[in-house]
Amino acid sequence: MAKSPPLKKLPKSKNLVASVSTVSLPQREVHNGHRGAVLWFTGLSASGKSTIANELEAALFKRGCHVFVLDGDRVRHGLCSDLDFSEASRHENIRRVGEVAKLFAEAGTICIAAFISPYRADRDLVRTIMAGGKFLEVYVNAPLKVCEQRDPKGLYAKARKHEIRNFTGISAPYEAPLKPEIELRTDKLNVAEAVDKILSNLQKTCGVPWKKS
Amino acid sequence: MAKSPPLKKLPKSKNLVASVSTVSLPQREVHNGHRGAVLWFTGLSASGKSTIANELEAALFKRGCHVFVLDGDRVRHGLCSDLDFSEASRHENIRRVGEVAKLFAEAGTICIAAFISPYRADRDLVRTIMAGGKFLEVYVNAPLKVCEQRDPKGLYAKARKHEIRNFTGISAPYEAPLKPEIELRTDKLNVAEAVDKILSNLQKTCGVPWKKS
Repeated sequence: MAKSPPLKKLPKSKNLVASVSTVSLPQREVHNGHRGAVLWFTGLSASGKSTIANELEAALFKRGCHVFVLDGDRVRHGLCSDLDFSEASRHENIRRVGEVAKLFAEAGTICIAAFISPYRADRDLVRTIMAGGKFLEVYVNAPLKVCEQRDPKGLYAKARKHEIRNFTGISAPYEAPLKPEIELRTDKLNVAEAVDKILSNLQKTCGVPWKKS
Repeated sequence: MAKSPPLKKLPKSKNLVASVSTVSLPQREVHNGHRGAVLWFTGLSASGKSTIANELEAALFKRGCHVFVLDGDRVRHGLCSDLDFSEASRHENIRRVGEVAKLFAEAGTICIAAFISPYRADRDLVRTIMAGGKFLEVYVNAPLKVCEQRDPKGLYAKARKHEIRNFTGISAPYEAPLKPEIELRTDKLNVAEAVDKILSNLQKTCGVPWKKS
């Protein structure tokens, strides 16, 4: 092989060896003014996950925090567009979202993942891949009868008529969290109260400023 | 079904309908002081992708930008841990990374994706899913003979001895970009010069401040 042209100015060792990320998570967190974390919202359809997630995102953004919501709308037609509704695909969907949420937390962001995520094992898998204290499980808890009465998309009605199969709470199980970091009884709290409850936790765990910046 | 307890304080319509994200991308970009984008680094093994990506990340971070590097180390054992080295898996790997990079750009971050990504169609697919001007292809271009002489991990030597199959540039094709937004001849530029060339582009395209903050 012919000798290649010399590398200009830079010593070979510096130029060639793949380096690790030069910006550490603590540096990012100091810059952002809060710690990164994953807030994992789980609960029945119509329990209020998306509504609270979006209001929380707005509240955190107003406080100057770096925050991003991952939900079905963000991944259904993109990252997880190859997945169907089989059981294996549902597990894989949560696994991938968990890995992406972890990347956002590594970037110093507060990542809010809002998915029914009915299986305890799937949620626990996401917990295990995260560094200690970076995973906060938020149980968005409304009784099934309340969710079914809300039914904003008419999904429960279809499930009762067997037009939708394997519908969580009706014809598929929902495994409630055993020790969620935060539980929100959305049949008793309104959205603002639910958001305040989470902010109070984030103030302690992530250094989020309580007052709006 | 029994009547559920009334929703406290909040009108039903507001509480129940899934809402879209309440923080827009322009709001995020104003807050960050620069636009979000995907910088897609492509090039042969040992062309300098990771080294430049990490130095660029440090330079952008010093300027107060929100930046994150996606590379093999970030996804191999996580998001893409289920993928092997078959051709189908390689395409799927790039597709998933592209979708994640897009999410970071939607969060207002400058996301640097550094992968050999040898197939033009795979890179073009990522370009098509991004909004106009948000995808910048960075061709990290060193002649094969230079990369092979560098060979920091001894991979080219193994590929020549047929110990590694389907090695890009040796026994598998590399399809060079036809119209990359940025081309870096890393046999002629050093790392600092390469970083400056990208920063100069980002100043125009993403509003990145030229001087360190």
